[in-house]
Amino acid sequence: MNPVLVNVMRGDAVESMHRGAVAVLDADGAVVASIGDMHRPILPRSAVKVLQALPLVASGAADRLGLTDDELAIACASHNGEALHARTAAAMLAKAGLDHTALECGTHWPYLDTASRALAAQQREPNALNNNCSGKHAGFLCLACALHGDVDLRQYVGGYVKPDHPVMREVTAALQSATGFDLATAPRGTDGCSIPTYAVPLRHLARAFARVGTGIGLSDGHARAAKRLRAAVAKAPFMVAGTGRFDTRVMERLGERVFCKVGAEGVFCAALPGRGLGVAIKIDDGNNARACEVVMAAVIEAFVALDDAQARFMRGFSDVTLSNWNGIEVGRLTADPVRTALESSIG
Amino acid sequence: MNPVLVNVMRGDAVESMHRGAVAVLDADGAVVASIGDMHRPILPRSAVKVLQALPLVASGAADRLGLTDDELAIACASHNGEALHARTAAAMLAKAGLDHTALECGTHWPYLDTASRALAAQQREPNALNNNCSGKHAGFLCLACALHGDVDLRQYVGGYVKPDHPVMREVTAALQSATGFDLATAPRGTDGCSIPTYAVPLRHLARAFARVGTGIGLSDGHARAAKRLRAAVAKAPFMVAGTGRFDTRVMERLGERVFCKVGAEGVFCAALPGRGLGVAIKIDDGNNARACEVVMAAVIEAFVALDDAQARFMRGFSDVTLSNWNGIEVGRLTADPVRTALESSIG
Repeated sequence: MNPVLVNVMRGDAVESMHRGAVAVLDADGAVVASIGDMHRPILPRSAVKVLQALPLVASGAADRLGLTDDELAIACASHNGEALHARTAAAMLAKAGLDHTALECGTHWPYLDTASRALAAQQREPNALNNNCSGKHAGFLCLACALHGDVDLRQYVGGYVKPDHPVMREVTAALQSATGFDLATAPRGTDGCSIPTYAVPLRHLARAFARVGTGIGLSDGHARAAKRLRAAVAKAPFMVAGTGRFDTRVMERLGERVFCKVGAEGVFCAALPGRGLGVAIKIDDGNNARACEVVMAAVIEAFVALDDAQARFMRGFSDVTLSNWNGIEVGRLTADPVRTALESSIG
Repeated sequence: MNPVLVNVMRGDAVESMHRGAVAVLDADGAVVASIGDMHRPILPRSAVKVLQALPLVASGAADRLGLTDDELAIACASHNGEALHARTAAAMLAKAGLDHTALECGTHWPYLDTASRALAAQQREPNALNNNCSGKHAGFLCLACALHGDVDLRQYVGGYVKPDHPVMREVTAALQSATGFDLATAPRGTDGCSIPTYAVPLRHLARAFARVGTGIGLSDGHARAAKRLRAAVAKAPFMVAGTGRFDTRVMERLGERVFCKVGAEGVFCAALPGRGLGVAIKIDDGNNARACEVVMAAVIEAFVALDDAQARFMRGFSDVTLSNWNGIEVGRLTADPVRTALESSIG
């Protein structure tokens, strides 16, 4: 039974609450903080996109195609589907000689409501470039290009989302290598964008992100790839999420000191390179915006040295004022429970 | 600690889970089923709109203004903000000599994405009529009309959302009378639409809905009003929610045998008049669409006699297939945990 990490207050009443687990480890696997069950395998979903992007760089595909920081960042993204995201994913595909019809992630309206309404106002419909995973999939297709050389790509890229496709085998091998968890026997599901997602314990995910932040425990190729991907995201944090999003706003403000990536269903992973630590969070009920983000903010407050202005900035994510449709303050999200649990966990 | 009521499966793994409490009582207060803590006061939010609408009918305002079934139904609604909802709320206001500028619920884009995009495609913005609470607020303004007779309304209606306004005092008195819970000492919050919301235990909410379904325990005026409101909603279930919504679809199918109303933050109340029962549900983490609706479907399955076709229909709400953006089945929501808990609770 995982403890309450976030309370949702309305007036003075606790209206709702979110339970979950947190693991903070170093690259050698030493546990620095642990709340709840960090041993149960959980589906990390999109939180591990940076691990899935390691082969794109390590294979030489990124260099060969001349991918930019924007493009490497969007390969690690769950983006809002804004116009700039769609254009960036399209540019990646063009470098591989492909277009949006090669994407196998499916189509949905942009996650950002204003971006959806902007499309509608132009009498347009979304395509697969607006899918929050389009950059990751463009990265998979660029990797296919490197794996298959100069031959006609289209015979190789179809079905790249399948677990036994050469591209997905490379991606899964990187995930297994970084997490050190046996994916062959792990519970497996199909992700929203149709690729496989493998259940991995929080402790392995946290250690993997400590490795991403330090290079310790990764192969030389993966260590260099992780460093380059982190640098790209730090230079282009808009690409990894977008307008108003936690990942974008926090990395815009804190730069390379935090590399964080949210996943679906209340999963959040981060590397804190300056501290040599990795973080993994799972909210039991799967809530993202008002639970795992609040918890991640509290973890960053606890482990990253912040000046007063940065501390106030982060406090805006860990103690969130809730207003109603008239702009009246009606309540707040508070990280007080996870703060208390972290203090007693760190000791 | 409330038990798990709903599991969210991806592949064969439990990806997320929702905890909560359920109370099923008759109008005399006898407990027919109870899961988790039904004694803790919880904020019922919009689930009690039918109780808040009792004075509109009991005062004679509805008759005096000639409100239709559509209009009485939308007075109990948390609607999608679709064009028909906005027109219906506007028609109510016109009968009271008012327009949308009198509404104090605030403005938001329609909850239904397709309705929002339709507005955007017409280069339009929403107004307060698109607020999911516009019908309830139009009802409050119609009640103000009855309370104040033929004098110029505008001097009386302003500030009707405040707890001490004559309209809100009537509404709160109806809530107190139906629930039998002392609201003067209850924790109070401000709702999304700016009216007060008072914390009431699930057992009192369930009994109140049993009273709404049977008239037992209500004043004669409130009993008649409840009957009329239920009949109106049964004739116009689209008005209470809208396209694709649980409340609308279930009441379209099951008619007067179920009167159900969802509230924010995972609250769901229902009257099952044929069984003389009331139901109240609270999901701890506040999730609506995939938690309290699944639980309510299981409760209806347990307590309402359904033919095979109706049973299959309800099963579509209690065991929900989850598909991804490519239409591939990736998982499901299952009410199995609440089914098991209900069986052992009923005994």
